[in-house]
Amino acid sequence: MGPKTTERNRLVLGSLIRHLHDFAREVELTIDEWMAGVHFVNAVGRIYSESGQTRNEAHRISDILGLETLVDEIAHKIISETGVDPTSSAILGPFWSPNAPFRENGGTIIQDPAPNGRICLMHGVVSDLLTGNPIPGAVFDIWQASSNGKYDFQDPENQTPNNLRGKFRTDESGKYWFYCYHPTAYSLPTNGPSYQLLQMMDRHPMRPAHIHIMVTHPDFKGCTTQLYPRDDPWLETDTVFAVKDDLVVDFKPLKGDEKAELELNYNVILAPKDYKGKLL
Amino acid sequence: MGPKTTERNRLVLGSLIRHLHDFAREVELTIDEWMAGVHFVNAVGRIYSESGQTRNEAHRISDILGLETLVDEIAHKIISETGVDPTSSAILGPFWSPNAPFRENGGTIIQDPAPNGRICLMHGVVSDLLTGNPIPGAVFDIWQASSNGKYDFQDPENQTPNNLRGKFRTDESGKYWFYCYHPTAYSLPTNGPSYQLLQMMDRHPMRPAHIHIMVTHPDFKGCTTQLYPRDDPWLETDTVFAVKDDLVVDFKPLKGDEKAELELNYNVILAPKDYKGKLL
Repeated sequence: MGPKTTERNRLVLGSLIRHLHDFAREVELTIDEWMAGVHFVNAVGRIYSESGQTRNEAHRISDILGLETLVDEIAHKIISETGVDPTSSAILGPFWSPNAPFRENGGTIIQDPAPNGRICLMHGVVSDLLTGNPIPGAVFDIWQASSNGKYDFQDPENQTPNNLRGKFRTDESGKYWFYCYHPTAYSLPTNGPSYQLLQMMDRHPMRPAHIHIMVTHPDFKGCTTQLYPRDDPWLETDTVFAVKDDLVVDFKPLKGDEKAELELNYNVILAPKDYKGKLL
Repeated sequence: MGPKTTERNRLVLGSLIRHLHDFAREVELTIDEWMAGVHFVNAVGRIYSESGQTRNEAHRISDILGLETLVDEIAHKIISETGVDPTSSAILGPFWSPNAPFRENGGTIIQDPAPNGRICLMHGVVSDLLTGNPIPGAVFDIWQASSNGKYDFQDPENQTPNNLRGKFRTDESGKYWFYCYHPTAYSLPTNGPSYQLLQMMDRHPMRPAHIHIMVTHPDFKGCTTQLYPRDDPWLETDTVFAVKDDLVVDFKPLKGDEKAELELNYNVILAPKDYKGKLL
C-alpha cells in the first residue's frame, strides 16, 4: 500500500488480505472453488441490483456467517459495574427503514390488517442504566414482518409502505405504548445466494419470530435489538445468531381491551452516552 | 453446520468463517466499516449485473487482493526435479473468452487494425518438460487488448467480437506462429468498486502490457499465463501481482517481413498430465 493510505485503512485492509490469504493457503483453495466464490459475490450483488436495491443480499450473507452479530458484540457489549446491564443489542438486519412515520402513543402500526395477525398491546418504560430514572422523549422505533412473514417492501400486494413500522416518543414517565402483531417466524429468501450458502452448510433458513426495535435519545447510547417469544422453536438455531437471553420475552393474554388479545411489557435500559463500563 | 455438509464444504467454509471472525476481532471492525463492506459487495455485483454480465468485478477485486495469483500458485507451482521448469502460470484474468475461433498458423488475430498497433510475428515451440520433444497438436489460445488498452467486448465501437483472440494448433514440429500486436499497458476501470479499493490502499490501477496465452493438450497439464515486455514500467508493481521472471520477454525488430515490424519468439514447456514433480 502507498504512503497516502490512512492508518486505519492500512490496518483493516492489511488484516483482511492477510486472513484471506491465510484462508486460501490453509484449505489449499482450488481454482474451481475460488471461481465459485467469484461467481457467488457477483450473484450477491446481482440480486441486490435486480431487486431494485431492496434485497440486500450482502447484508444477509454477512448475517448468516455470523459477522453482523460479531460486529454488533464488538461495538455494543457493555458489562456494567452496577449489577444492572443495559438492554442487549442485536443486529439491525436488512429491513430497517429510515422512513418509518412518527405515530402517537396508543396508536397502532397495523395499517393493513392481516388474516392471522394476533394483535398485541406492547408497552413499557425506557430508563437510565445509572440512575434508574425514566427517560422522557426517547424515540422508540419498531418494525416487524406481517403474519405472512413478510415486511412491507417484500409484500406490495398486501402491504402499503410503512405498514408495521412506526416511531413513538416516550412520555414524561418514560412510557411508550402501541398496538402491533405478535411476531411470526419466517424463512430467509430461498431463491438466492444466501440460501445456496445455507444449503452448503446443511443449515435451515429460519429466523425465530421477532420484533425489531431501535431506541434512541440524544443523551444515551442507542439500542438496536430484537425481541423473541419464549415458545419459538427456532430460538436455539436462529440462522443469523441474533438471540440473547434477555431478549426472550413472554406475551400474555390481555383482558379488557377490545383492540388486542395479547400484551407485551418490555422495559428498555439505556446507558448514558459517555458511560464507559467495561467493554467486552 | 449440519451433518449433510460435505467434508470439503465443512473445511473450506469453516476456515473462511473463522478467518472472517478473526479479522473482525483483530481490527475491532466497526459497524460503519462492516456496513461499508456490505455496500461494497453489493456494488461489486451491481456493476457485473448492469454491465450485462461482461464486467466481472468480483474477479477483479480478488485479483487486486492477490487472491487469484495465490490460488494459481497453490494449484500450479511445480518444481521439477530435472533442472528444467515448466512454463510458469499466471492468472486467467476476467477477459478470456471460450468463443475464440481457431485460426491457421501464419494467420493474424488482428481483425480490426488499430491506429497505433505495432504488428508482431509471434512464434515458438511447445515442448515436453520430461523428454524435451516437441508437442504437435497443442492448442495455443491467445487474447490481448488492442492498442487503446481495451479488449473486444469492452470496446464495441472499434472492435468486432473475437478481435485479438484466436486459437492455433501446433504443427508436426510443435511450432505455432501468427501475427498479433505488441501489447499495451492499461488501467483497470476507474469507475467502480475495484478502483475505490485501490484508492483506499493508495495503489495505482495499471497492469503492465501483456499477452495472455493458454496452452493445452490432452496429454499435458495446461498452462495459462501472461507474457510481459521487459521494458514495461509497471512490471514491479503490477496491480494484480501476476508478473514472474520467466514471463518477461524481449520483443525484437523484425526485418524482411512486410507484415510485421517486431518479432517475439516464445517457447512453452508443458509437464505431462500425470507428472508429480514437487509441489510448492
